[in-house]
Amino acid sequence: MPARARTDRGAATRERILDAAEQLFAEHGVYAVSNRAIAEAADQGNNAVVGYHFGTKADLVRALVRRHADAVDRRREAMVAGLGPDPGVRDWVDCLVRPAAQHLGDLGAPTWYARFGAQIMTDPALRPVLLAESLASPSLTAALDGLRSCLPALPQRVQRERADLCRLLLVHHLAERERTLADEADEAATAPAAAWSRTATGLVDAVVGIWLAPPTDDSETRS
Amino acid sequence: MPARARTDRGAATRERILDAAEQLFAEHGVYAVSNRAIAEAADQGNNAVVGYHFGTKADLVRALVRRHADAVDRRREAMVAGLGPDPGVRDWVDCLVRPAAQHLGDLGAPTWYARFGAQIMTDPALRPVLLAESLASPSLTAALDGLRSCLPALPQRVQRERADLCRLLLVHHLAERERTLADEADEAATAPAAAWSRTATGLVDAVVGIWLAPPTDDSETRS
Repeated sequence: MPARARTDRGAATRERILDAAEQLFAEHGVYAVSNRAIAEAADQGNNAVVGYHFGTKADLVRALVRRHADAVDRRREAMVAGLGPDPGVRDWVDCLVRPAAQHLGDLGAPTWYARFGAQIMTDPALRPVLLAESLASPSLTAALDGLRSCLPALPQRVQRERADLCRLLLVHHLAERERTLADEADEAATAPAAAWSRTATGLVDAVVGIWLAPPTDDSETRS
Repeated sequence: MPARARTDRGAATRERILDAAEQLFAEHGVYAVSNRAIAEAADQGNNAVVGYHFGTKADLVRALVRRHADAVDRRREAMVAGLGPDPGVRDWVDCLVRPAAQHLGDLGAPTWYARFGAQIMTDPALRPVLLAESLASPSLTAALDGLRSCLPALPQRVQRERADLCRLLLVHHLAERERTLADEADEAATAPAAAWSRTATGLVDAVVGIWLAPPTDDSETRS
């Protein structure tokens, strides 16, 4: 077999493994799924194939994150580049929230990435993989800096807390919506892009609400 | 052994099993932990003891939920009863958010219930257990009705969506804070009640921000 064909076949095998792993992880949990189960779901006779192509579970998780993160990033780059002359809080929040939802809409139905992502974000051992990928994204950094530049003054502690709250909301709400859309075949099958767009709009409203809420000073702590 | 002493010993054994199960579930995941592991952590020689006292895993989860839900409920009843003559959005949100945080503060450090609760809420098979317990709480119903009665007009779909978002935020933020407090022994050990009270205040600010955010009409859906 010529080298090119061998490479193509290797790439196709890798994609099949990633597809199988993503679905199994989303539905059964990252730790409940063995390499053997992934190999079987990917129609690979050899159980060692997952380790051969992807190394450890953390490496496999990283490969899964990366194939989506790049697409989300390109969408966000385009949104940031297309912003008007004087973007406000809502514009920057839109750049932070909408690309991930649009990406899920692009994938068609059903998707598994949001449920997989929520697990990774909740797992102390795997979360650093996701954060490392995010930190490497210039468009994400630009959107976060842009948002900070137009927020009302907030104490550092409150800023950190709200960033955490918004991240939690994004990750877990997308995962819940994905689960619902997978069950409600109607809406998902007929118009996944519209369903995800509405989800993004509701999330943007909520996240803007969080950032603009007046902070309560609780130095006189109630208990 | 007289019947009374036997009953007391049975109750003590049940409590030890619940303590062991809660910690193991929080740290390793509800599905990763076997009855055998729970029995060993509870210093019970007989592995069948968990099934004997609690039946299925769903029954054990229900018992764990119940022993905290009652305490949270009593706190919420007292808060609702103590409201002034014309409570507003913030007062009702306080009744919805603060009792769970205060309960965690009461337990001392470290706690495990918030991390356990976040798993139950995310698990399609176990979530109904938690929802059934919540539905049985008159003070929760009163606080939700009270909140609805003073909200600005919102479309039904937006109301449902925001209720989901606020529930997600509550459950997952409490779990993340619990994880952080367990790692930062300082703050947790010296003043868990104050730490949880600040957490509640930040959450109340955010949840009020979500409810009061102007909803965007996306009938002209962007895609």
